[in-house]
Amino acid sequence: MSQTKAVRIDNLQYANWSEKIFRQMRQGGVDAVHVTIAYHENFREMVFNIERWNRWFEQFPELIFHGNWASDVVKAREGGRTAIYFGFQNPSPIEDDIGLVEVVHALGARFMQLTYNNQSLLASGCYEAEDTGITRMGRQVIKEMNRVGLVVDMSHSAERSTLEAIEISERPIAITHANPAWWMPALRNKSDEVLKAVGQSGGMLGFSLYPHHLKDKSACTLSSFCEMVARTADLMGIDHIGIGSDLCQDQPDSVVEWMRVGRWSKEVDYGEGSRDNAGFPPQPDWFKDNRDFGNIEQGLRKTGLSEADVGKIMGGNWLRFYEASFTPA
Amino acid sequence: MSQTKAVRIDNLQYANWSEKIFRQMRQGGVDAVHVTIAYHENFREMVFNIERWNRWFEQFPELIFHGNWASDVVKAREGGRTAIYFGFQNPSPIEDDIGLVEVVHALGARFMQLTYNNQSLLASGCYEAEDTGITRMGRQVIKEMNRVGLVVDMSHSAERSTLEAIEISERPIAITHANPAWWMPALRNKSDEVLKAVGQSGGMLGFSLYPHHLKDKSACTLSSFCEMVARTADLMGIDHIGIGSDLCQDQPDSVVEWMRVGRWSKEVDYGEGSRDNAGFPPQPDWFKDNRDFGNIEQGLRKTGLSEADVGKIMGGNWLRFYEASFTPA
Repeated sequence: MSQTKAVRIDNLQYANWSEKIFRQMRQGGVDAVHVTIAYHENFREMVFNIERWNRWFEQFPELIFHGNWASDVVKAREGGRTAIYFGFQNPSPIEDDIGLVEVVHALGARFMQLTYNNQSLLASGCYEAEDTGITRMGRQVIKEMNRVGLVVDMSHSAERSTLEAIEISERPIAITHANPAWWMPALRNKSDEVLKAVGQSGGMLGFSLYPHHLKDKSACTLSSFCEMVARTADLMGIDHIGIGSDLCQDQPDSVVEWMRVGRWSKEVDYGEGSRDNAGFPPQPDWFKDNRDFGNIEQGLRKTGLSEADVGKIMGGNWLRFYEASFTPA
Repeated sequence: MSQTKAVRIDNLQYANWSEKIFRQMRQGGVDAVHVTIAYHENFREMVFNIERWNRWFEQFPELIFHGNWASDVVKAREGGRTAIYFGFQNPSPIEDDIGLVEVVHALGARFMQLTYNNQSLLASGCYEAEDTGITRMGRQVIKEMNRVGLVVDMSHSAERSTLEAIEISERPIAITHANPAWWMPALRNKSDEVLKAVGQSGGMLGFSLYPHHLKDKSACTLSSFCEMVARTADLMGIDHIGIGSDLCQDQPDSVVEWMRVGRWSKEVDYGEGSRDNAGFPPQPDWFKDNRDFGNIEQGLRKTGLSEADVGKIMGGNWLRFYEASFTPA
């Protein structure tokens, strides 16, 4: 490749998608976005979500297209479009069927969390009181994910399950959207032990911009966020970090209730929120939508990180990870 | 009721159903059978199995009919037929949807295991290395099962999960098919602690005739089995035991592979069997099919149990449990 501006990748968004947002992706120079297409959906329901994306791809071909391989990031960059990669925040789309791992990869799924907040058939979620680690089926499924090129994502999983997934997986895993717990001790943020293990195994952490994962939540400052990124680079290695903003733009609060409660409970579960603060929290003013990635890039420069390192964080590392991860073993 | 012969209930069978077997039920004087209609089936697949049963009910109305309530046992008895009650050995039919608990009860499901051999969304199966107990969704689902009248069955669940289910459930639970581990230390058989807790909470144990659960397996003697039953009566109380034969009559060995492996593994799992002994084991010669319940009844008399107590074990206890369990709370 010729010397060009570094690629810009956001490795997790779940917006209420619209032409407006796709245009903002272009205004923000975002070459690729990994979008969530399943929280609680079973296989058929997840396919409905792919059908919706297919209609958007048909409607807005000048803005977005379906990304399958790492090379699609470059293709997006060159064509001034954004490549959209599919992923699941729950293994619900494979139901109880290991054969669906290969099928969902063929449909374009590139990341799959082994759990959302609860116990799954594969592992324990971070909201369970107990964490058994990887189950019998989980061991089989990780092996199959490694084989076909579906990345293990442990963003919402509990500590022991995460450490075991790193150990069991023969290919590097990702934590697509979370922050270090030392900076913000949220249940969803990760211990130094987990972060080090991810880095040492060649994996990736995507830093989250979701206010419940930020120090001081919606009041978090850009400099605090960027200093945290720089310190995490020291802990994990500069090659193992990127962005996974968890941007849930334009979603009504009914959606965060669905994300938390799905169909598993008749009672309301407030997850990271609370009865008094049940909805989506407001974004910090320096990261409201896809147009604001430049703010983060500038903030990272101010911490003293080199231009090359800033480029790695803003997308270069994810691109390298995509190259290594999405094709069959 | 007038003084009549005690009812005869087998609270677990999974045969390769046929007119021959339905006629044997009549020859054996079996008033009611709880049949498994789901091992790994999701909701829609379980409904296919109900459709198959509906066709059998239509074809053989003089032999069998769908049992919904305890009163159907008496109706079966009076009409010389066998009432067929539906149950699941896995919560797979409710998928991830608590709303399906009420729906499956409306369709006739009366027992649901919280797990088969593996970790489920609700609890840990006895073949997992770790046992977390009841999950977040499990607590919600038990409450809903209690509300609608769907019995919690922990036959294949791990120890801690079973003890927690007994504690959490506000209605007595069942272990529909297993034996005491002191008699035959199989992974599927139950500790004294579990058996005592089931008895003290008003629950039920159904004694299994599946050879892997029997002392000396297929060579188990009738007297050994009946002595075990009598000793378990001392441990649990005479009112808390019955039969749950786990009879898998006329099934090809491909079915036991499906039961064990489902869709969760690409590798073969031998479950209670082994590579050299992968298929269904032969039944002991004193319990080959539904015509042999008289052998067990006679064997129990020989242990010195009273006629009244033998009647409780052969069906009276299950009938009382059905009366208390199948209607909404």
